[in-house]
Amino acid sequence: MSKSDTESESKCGGATAESTDAADSESRCRASSSKGDGDAASKCGGSSGGSKKGQTAEKVEATIEDFDGEPGQLVAVGLGPGRASEMTTLAKDTLREADHIVGYTTYIELLPDDIVEGADDIYSTPMCGEVSRTEEAVDRTLAGNDVAIVGSGDPNVYALAGLALEILESKGATASMVDFDVVAGVPAAQSCAARLGAPLVNDTVTISLSDHLTSMPTIESRLHAAAKEGFTIAIYNPWSRKRRANYEKCCEILLEHRAPDTPVGIVHGAGRDDEEVEIVELRELPDLGETDLVDMTTTLLVGNEETYVWDDRMVTPRGYEQKYEY
Amino acid sequence: MSKSDTESESKCGGATAESTDAADSESRCRASSSKGDGDAASKCGGSSGGSKKGQTAEKVEATIEDFDGEPGQLVAVGLGPGRASEMTTLAKDTLREADHIVGYTTYIELLPDDIVEGADDIYSTPMCGEVSRTEEAVDRTLAGNDVAIVGSGDPNVYALAGLALEILESKGATASMVDFDVVAGVPAAQSCAARLGAPLVNDTVTISLSDHLTSMPTIESRLHAAAKEGFTIAIYNPWSRKRRANYEKCCEILLEHRAPDTPVGIVHGAGRDDEEVEIVELRELPDLGETDLVDMTTTLLVGNEETYVWDDRMVTPRGYEQKYEY
Repeated sequence: MSKSDTESESKCGGATAESTDAADSESRCRASSSKGDGDAASKCGGSSGGSKKGQTAEKVEATIEDFDGEPGQLVAVGLGPGRASEMTTLAKDTLREADHIVGYTTYIELLPDDIVEGADDIYSTPMCGEVSRTEEAVDRTLAGNDVAIVGSGDPNVYALAGLALEILESKGATASMVDFDVVAGVPAAQSCAARLGAPLVNDTVTISLSDHLTSMPTIESRLHAAAKEGFTIAIYNPWSRKRRANYEKCCEILLEHRAPDTPVGIVHGAGRDDEEVEIVELRELPDLGETDLVDMTTTLLVGNEETYVWDDRMVTPRGYEQKYEY
Repeated sequence: MSKSDTESESKCGGATAESTDAADSESRCRASSSKGDGDAASKCGGSSGGSKKGQTAEKVEATIEDFDGEPGQLVAVGLGPGRASEMTTLAKDTLREADHIVGYTTYIELLPDDIVEGADDIYSTPMCGEVSRTEEAVDRTLAGNDVAIVGSGDPNVYALAGLALEILESKGATASMVDFDVVAGVPAAQSCAARLGAPLVNDTVTISLSDHLTSMPTIESRLHAAAKEGFTIAIYNPWSRKRRANYEKCCEILLEHRAPDTPVGIVHGAGRDDEEVEIVELRELPDLGETDLVDMTTTLLVGNEETYVWDDRMVTPRGYEQKYEY
């Protein structure tokens, strides 16, 4: 995790960028801007070289005093799992109205052609972290552009909304100044659940196994609490090469509180060409960490004590069967 | 909660129907079918009198043996908060392809005109419970129609997906037989969060205060666990005239573990004409139960110990500020 002191250092955020798609290896930032008027800068977070409206942001550390004129609007948009059909109409309309679209390359590449072609500029980064990308989005907004910053799922699920607000504040701007808005998307827990039938249904907990920003003892404590209380559980960021131990610990904690035959839904690459959906028993989970099925694009949905598998689907009863005849 | 023994009894599900919109009072079922060929039955769950394809379902307790011919497809569709713009393209396309659409009247009324006009039949019930409505949807599918059963939010969040599968099984059918599918929608937690800024962001718990199908001791235990562990918390079904005590107990438990100035976002009637959004402190929550702001169309979003209010928005930091400079 690098802290940037000078302009020449990458503000990528280092090796373990907080994203379900981030690779663990160190990488040179390959930020790109597809439609800038000038040279595309290779520096992560750097200016794309210009935009059709407003000023160029010269420094990553720009604050509100560095800009003249009216800011544009900044909107955080959730794309859902990624396919155009699983985006809301509001998300698509918002992207069509934006001058600039900023996001992780994988998701920019999933955007419909008409949206990409209609934007004045697209700023995407492959390996760099959310921090530099979000700073770039805020700078462009302060420079007068209407900017949409995109991410998979929903902006309130381990995603962009909070960081955008924090960065606005750090730059001496306000949310109102950029008419900051959030467009909700379908979170991974629900888009994956849809692919499994009805695994969630009741009181649910969502936990990320990434300890980049949350300590592992805290994550473990939350896993214990969730597993004891009979919540259905959605596990995000379950595995990476550097975080195998987190996955193993998670399996151990779940098995401590839940029956070994508890159904677990595994959805890999939801909405993508390599999508895979499997239903396994909790006892099988530890070994699956070393397979292609479980990686950073995977969401795990753990059933509670009532969940069962029927006709290749997970079913968690809501409780109607206790009260009604059918 | 009524159990139906004969055809003449209502299978409405009684006074406390499990829905964020259900009223608590007893009501006579006023099921309606807008386009049936024959008489619209007034019996909750009863046949609409015909449909353009397949057989008429004569009995609510129909099983697979009562039908000839190929079943149609049954899809559970999440509508998000209700406005057409906040539905996914896939949801709209699925509804356009359906022969019959079944749902709670309030949500049927929010559907775009072209979808309503394009359907062969719309079956809606105002006060009756999900059980009879879902049985009706399944019967129509077994009779050969392609049926979409709709609900607000997402089918895996206190909603239709599990019940549809259970009812299919109870009728001797299978999910595969009706090519059962689920189309995800934006859950209330996320559509409400979008209206508040960035209240959720991190590990989150979703808890319903409705004790119709889950016991209050269980709900209390879950509230304690969630409040202790620093989860952000989405509270569904927070209040109704018959469940004031549940709301009061919830406030008490939250105040036991969280600071009295913890931000709480309140979103009433998200996506509707009477939508209201407020950010209050946890200490104010108990008194708000008796106001119009908190009712069955309200979702509460409780911040964790890091959450703060800035420029009229809730901000829950993800943790980047500990690791990065910005």
